[in-house]
Amino acid sequence: MQPASRMDTACGANPNLRLTEKIMATTANEHLNDWLRDAHAMEQQAETMLTAQAERLEHYPELRARIVQHIEETRGQQSILAGILTRRGIENSVLKDLGGKLAAFGQGVGGMMTSDEVVKGAMAGYVFENLEIASYTSLIGAANAVGDTATATACEQILVQEKAMAAWLLEHLPQITAAFLVRSETPGLDAKV
Amino acid sequence: MQPASRMDTACGANPNLRLTEKIMATTANEHLNDWLRDAHAMEQQAETMLTAQAERLEHYPELRARIVQHIEETRGQQSILAGILTRRGIENSVLKDLGGKLAAFGQGVGGMMTSDEVVKGAMAGYVFENLEIASYTSLIGAANAVGDTATATACEQILVQEKAMAAWLLEHLPQITAAFLVRSETPGLDAKV
Repeated sequence: MQPASRMDTACGANPNLRLTEKIMATTANEHLNDWLRDAHAMEQQAETMLTAQAERLEHYPELRARIVQHIEETRGQQSILAGILTRRGIENSVLKDLGGKLAAFGQGVGGMMTSDEVVKGAMAGYVFENLEIASYTSLIGAANAVGDTATATACEQILVQEKAMAAWLLEHLPQITAAFLVRSETPGLDAKV
Repeated sequence: MQPASRMDTACGANPNLRLTEKIMATTANEHLNDWLRDAHAMEQQAETMLTAQAERLEHYPELRARIVQHIEETRGQQSILAGILTRRGIENSVLKDLGGKLAAFGQGVGGMMTSDEVVKGAMAGYVFENLEIASYTSLIGAANAVGDTATATACEQILVQEKAMAAWLLEHLPQITAAFLVRSETPGLDAKV
């Protein structure tokens, strides 16, 4: 399932397809452009949600510190993506319908993330990180398919940060859960955030 | 952050807390019951979404086969959870507010999953799997905190299946993306599902 060899085979099998090669390449690049625009919107949504979450957390300082660190990483990722958009000549003002679907999805995650309960908030953060992991994994496949190695490399770099954040959240989720249960059981302690 | 030792410390520091120990334990078990009820609802939602996705997929037989396999696993997970609910005496008729939030989240994921595009569908499937991974990871922490090892063991068993499905989807996402791009570039081929 190597895209390059499959395209070569298709072109070799039917010489007429050579005529459409440029159009074909544009189509794949257009998909990639749409997905990069989505990724940029996703990182803006991530910053908004993470910031709201960090501001609410009072009693879970370790989780809060990791989120604050990731807000900084998220801003760096926005810059990297903005650079890719500029280099590829992608206008960043118009969001396509996938952006709308992502927004609906994000609202659902946001509803969990702004929940007044730390456990659901940490879970939502982990889920959103995995949306990002899926996005960059797919983007890397697409960038390699069109031969844009600079974009693939940049997305690999971002992917490392997203995977580290997701792993941290999953690793600490049992502790956060147990701490929440202890706090909620202890008279006089506020457990939720 | 070990819950047992923290509770011991709290009780040791203030003997009056011993009086509330039974109430405290009930509170933790109530949280666990709510989360187990959420998990059962989540698996019902998973079956609905996976079934819709499998029915739509036409041109990606490997992905479809893996989804069909996971539908079977999901039904098995529902049975395991139903058994836990019965053993713990949890009524399954009433969904709490977290169920509502999960439903809103699921609608967002569902919007992506029922998208007419295989890449976003596979991504949404991966994201939903990770919601399940977060849920069972937290449930295991909660079950261990209250000493319900049977529930912890059952959730560990489900978690293995969810992680395997998530790993499969992430591993195949670049291929699915590349195949989608090739199909969408090739005249006469339907790429989307």
